Parts: sequence; C-alpha cells; structure tokens
Amino acid sequence: MSAYEKLKRATEKGLHICVGLDTDKDKIPAHLLSTDNPMLEFNKVVIQNTFEDAAAYKINFAFYESEGIKGIETMIGTLKLIPDSILVIADAKRGDIGNTSKKYAQSVYDYYKYDSVTLQPYMGYDSVSPFLEYKDKLNFILSLTSNPSSNDFEKLNLSGGRFLYQEVIAKINEWNKFNNCGIVFGATNSDELKLNMNNLKNLPLLLPGVGAQGGSLKSIVDLFDNVDYHDYLINISRGLLYVDDSYNFGMQIKSKLIEYNNLIKSILNS
Amino acid sequence: MSAYEKLKRATEKGLHICVGLDTDKDKIPAHLLSTDNPMLEFNKVVIQNTFEDAAAYKINFAFYESEGIKGIETMIGTLKLIPDSILVIADAKRGDIGNTSKKYAQSVYDYYKYDSVTLQPYMGYDSVSPFLEYKDKLNFILSLTSNPSSNDFEKLNLSGGRFLYQEVIAKINEWNKFNNCGIVFGATNSDELKLNMNNLKNLPLLLPGVGAQGGSLKSIVDLFDNVDYHDYLINISRGLLYVDDSYNFGMQIKSKLIEYNNLIKSILNS
Repeated sequence: MSAYEKLKRATEKGLHICVGLDTDKDKIPAHLLSTDNPMLEFNKVVIQNTFEDAAAYKINFAFYESEGIKGIETMIGTLKLIPDSILVIADAKRGDIGNTSKKYAQSVYDYYKYDSVTLQPYMGYDSVSPFLEYKDKLNFILSLTSNPSSNDFEKLNLSGGRFLYQEVIAKINEWNKFNNCGIVFGATNSDELKLNMNNLKNLPLLLPGVGAQGGSLKSIVDLFDNVDYHDYLINISRGLLYVDDSYNFGMQIKSKLIEYNNLIKSILNS
Repeated sequence: MSAYEKLKRATEKGLHICVGLDTDKDKIPAHLLSTDNPMLEFNKVVIQNTFEDAAAYKINFAFYESEGIKGIETMIGTLKLIPDSILVIADAKRGDIGNTSKKYAQSVYDYYKYDSVTLQPYMGYDSVSPFLEYKDKLNFILSLTSNPSSNDFEKLNLSGGRFLYQEVIAKINEWNKFNNCGIVFGATNSDELKLNMNNLKNLPLLLPGVGAQGGSLKSIVDLFDNVDYHDYLINISRGLLYVDDSYNFGMQIKSKLIEYNNLIKSILNS
C-alpha cells in the first residue's frame, strides 16, 4: 500500500489524529522504569491502545537519537509494533545537498522503511528531490512551523509581496510531479492556515502544535468544515502521551484519543 | 579544550582544510571490502594519514545513518580514532522546535560528544537555541549553501532589500551571545562571499563545496589574503577521500592534503 493510500484509508474513516511518539524517558510512568527498555514498553502500550483510532504515527527522531544506539534499537522495535496498514512518518526534518540527501533518503526509506518523512526546505529543490524519487512515499516539507520563532524567517516578506512560507508552498506545488509531496503547517497559525487554504491545493497536510504548543484543535478543524479538503493530519504528542502516569495510562490515552476524534466528528458533521 | 580553542589551534598553524568524512561504502578501495567493517577501516587509514595536516574533521551523518545501527557503530568507532585536540564537526543539519532541538543537541553533544554541529536556520531562533546553550561548542548555521538550488529560497530578495541568506547572517550575529556561533557559506558562491565579508563579522566559517561541487580552492583562499579573517575551514570530502583506490590510498590522500595546504600557504604568504 502506498503512503497516500494509507493516509486515505484513515481520513476516509474520519480519522485525522496523528499520534506523535515523542517518547521522553523522563516523562514515562514510573512503573515502567524497571523494565529492560522503558521507552519501548511505553510505546508498546501507547500503540496497543491507539492503533484502532489513530490516523497515523509520527516518530520524532530526536527523542530516539538522544539515547544513542539503544534509542535507534527502540525506534526499530517501535516500528515493528505498528500495523502495516497505518501511515508512519519519520519526523526527522532532513535536508542537505543532493548526494547527502540521497543517503538520508536511503536511511529513512530503505533502511527503516518509513512511509513518510518531514523535510527542511531551506536548501531548495535538489535538497529534497532524492526523497521525491521514492514515488510511493509521502514527503512533508516544512512551510510555516508551529514554534514562536517561525517569525524570524518564515514570515519575512519577500520583495514580490509574498511571505517566505508562501513561496515555499508555491515551490512544493511545483515539485509535486509524483503526487508525493505534503506540507507541514503549524496548528498554532490557524489564521495563516485560513488565509492560505487555496494555495495549499489539497496537498496532504501535517499540522503539529495542538496541545502543549498552544494550538487549538477546534480552531483547526473548523477550517476544514464544509470545504472539500480531507487529506490532513493533526499531530498530537504531549497532549496524548502524558495525560496519565498510572498503571492504566494506556486506557487513559485511548480515551483521550477517542475524545479528540469525537470532537473532530462533531465539528465536521455539524 | 573548547571547540573554538581547537579551531584556533589549527588556524594559527595555517591549517584550514577540514577533512569531510563522507565515507561511501560504494567508493572505498576494493581491498578493504573483505574486512569486518570496511567503512571504519577506510576512516582509520584516512585519519592516520591526515591528522597532522587537517584543521578539522567533519562527519556527514547521512553516510552513517544510511547504514543503520552498523553505521552508527562506525561513527562511534571513527570518533575514537580522532585525536582529542582536533575539532570534530557533526554535519547533521539539525533543527526543530525547542523541546525537540534540545534532544538533538543531547544526541550530538552529550551522547557522541562532538565539538561542533551544522544547523538549519529555517525555523528560527528557538530551533537553534538549545544548541547555543552549550557554550564551549561551535554551532555552524547554514546561510548560503553550496548546492545549485540555493537559488530557490536562500537567494530570494526580501522586501527590505537584503537576500534571505543575508538576513540569516544578521540573525546569527544577534544570536552569538556566547561566541559559539559559526556560519556555513558554500565555496561555490565566492562572489557572494566576497560581497559579504564585512557582514560575517569574523565569525568562524565553514566553507564546503570545493572540488566535486565545483568550488575553487584558490578563489576562496584569495578572499582571505591580506584581510584580518582567520577562523575559516574549507571542507573537502570527495576531493580527498577518493583520489586513489590502490593499497597506498592513504599516502595519496596525505599527499593531496599537503598539496592543498601548500597552495593555501603560497596564497596567504604571497
């Protein structure tokens, strides 16, 4: 199944929440800390309790790389726990000159066998093109991010009148020859998202920033109500993973995810 | 020794070549392929033959990550082979929202214990600040890169009249409170480098792109002749690593590096 088919399979069921596995060993429930691999045990419980209601999973590389080789082993172990029918995004924010990006693409797509990746746009087309050659994958390129410092460069005005992030969106549309590009747009920027809905040309969207970063789920989903735009994923990490630290944390995460799904359904069906 | 002290130690000796360990298992001499870890054996020979004449080493993460866990083990093994007095740069092009960049910084600086890193500027200050908190390290932030597609965004005109990459340089100077920022400037852009020498404010420079990417060593070094700017590293990867594939490739690499150093000295002392 291609990455896009996996995405479609979820969104056609009305599922839009991407579960962000930003697994922080300092935040996981204490009773797991005596196990051989607490991060992997935590992810196992999260996945067992969310796979029926999640639209996708996003694995944040930094949280695994910071643990070195053991962290990489945890990432590999985690990937094995996710059903093959669910889209899995490598949140790695990669991007470099062509021959180097080719190696990063081999790492993400050939070695780990992810369905999808997040990419940096700064260095331009040849820095993302080795990823785009994988036609069955889905390459989410940053346009406007969810962090406060997105003001520093992304929101700068270009001489032609557009903001930099809008120029990036225009370029992503040019680069989308194989229909395997997507756009990262921070959910903290719901005003800008509203203004740019037409520029996004129905490309798959990855919308991080709901919850801990201050983005409101309702204000984002409202924008997709009564419009013909369905390929979007709203990532939630901290707002799901750490809702509870009891022995029952898995059930609590499941309940929270269902609560989010019900909120989305209530908005879209209203 | 701080990263800056290591850099200074090299440049005060007139050494400016950074040896880029973009070790590609498809390009290393055939006689190494029967060893247990050909990439590590190759790096060992390279380091043994260059450590006396190299200003620094730059390890390109993509070439190791593409080999998975074995590649990470090769990276760790390689780091152990480099004398502690020499600056080692993690060419990882990292950058993400604050809590994630903090984890990337832990990976590069706490786990691997690199002296230095390359960073993406696109997401702005809070995406690099967790790295800047490591005061004894050296954080090279991309401004104008060496690849052809640097035209796509980096050379766009902002409404104020500057190019985007110039705005990035200005911001890096603002962010340099702990004197631990550097700038990546592609050696393929020698005209732009000349025009911006004053804007760079003597910050440490990492200049990739000489050799395989078309940048000329002479045209770069000419810019530093008779000016009071000494903290610069010219990275050469493919133009050193693959000059020879015989049993004597180590000696050939050593000769080539000395040849580069002599060219630099002849320009600076002319």
